[in-house]
Amino acid sequence: MRKIEHLGIAVKDLKKSTELFEKLLGKPSYKEEAVKREEVVTSFFQVGETKIELLQSSDSQGPIRKFIEKRNEGLHHIAFAVDDIYAEMKRLQEAGFEVLNDVPKRGADHKLIVFLHPRSTNGVLVELCQEIDSSLE
Amino acid sequence: MRKIEHLGIAVKDLKKSTELFEKLLGKPSYKEEAVKREEVVTSFFQVGETKIELLQSSDSQGPIRKFIEKRNEGLHHIAFAVDDIYAEMKRLQEAGFEVLNDVPKRGADHKLIVFLHPRSTNGVLVELCQEIDSSLE
Repeated sequence: MRKIEHLGIAVKDLKKSTELFEKLLGKPSYKEEAVKREEVVTSFFQVGETKIELLQSSDSQGPIRKFIEKRNEGLHHIAFAVDDIYAEMKRLQEAGFEVLNDVPKRGADHKLIVFLHPRSTNGVLVELCQEIDSSLE
Repeated sequence: MRKIEHLGIAVKDLKKSTELFEKLLGKPSYKEEAVKREEVVTSFFQVGETKIELLQSSDSQGPIRKFIEKRNEGLHHIAFAVDDIYAEMKRLQEAGFEVLNDVPKRGADHKLIVFLHPRSTNGVLVELCQEIDSSLE
């Protein structure tokens, strides 16, 4: 786990929340991105080495919509940057963590990602992500 | 907001959760600290430039106990490092955020801290913290 790559925050209204976080952080969002596979639209801020990723559901059944129905808006997940996502998956599975994906999937922002189930991580939804080497694509 | 100084995670059992996060992060906790004023005992991990701070209530009425009763264990707050906490408090109050302390108070880990109410920050409990210059004490 090299650093905290980003923090995901579940929001109801991406436009309003982007304006709110622009005021809070004193800087503009540098990117918006839709991730169809995850059923979200996202807005990114950079704070030091970590990104803050606002997440709005783009689907009435998506995971962010369900999270907000249950817990309301707020901190949703923490994503750690790793150098070798396959090795980390193996290490964590062997240590008893519940990895939610058999193989890494494609996330926002040019990443391979997997999630750990919060019931194995103290109620914290943990993401691992590895930068995709675009020279290999 | 210079960087994310730490992330607070509410836990029921600091010892068990410290062991869990040692396995998750692949490194030991570097410090435990009791903060009487906040009614917590804490355990710290360093990940890149950010700390992860596990928080267990040391009091049956403390804020972490109440949080866990309402929402269970999990991500509790996000703390941003600032260079001038008084200037940031003023800027954020003028921008409409609800600052929970009239003056900064003393937190864990040699910091002056204030909190913003989550109802003004999209459900996210936000802390500002400034390193105390120990040469001035």
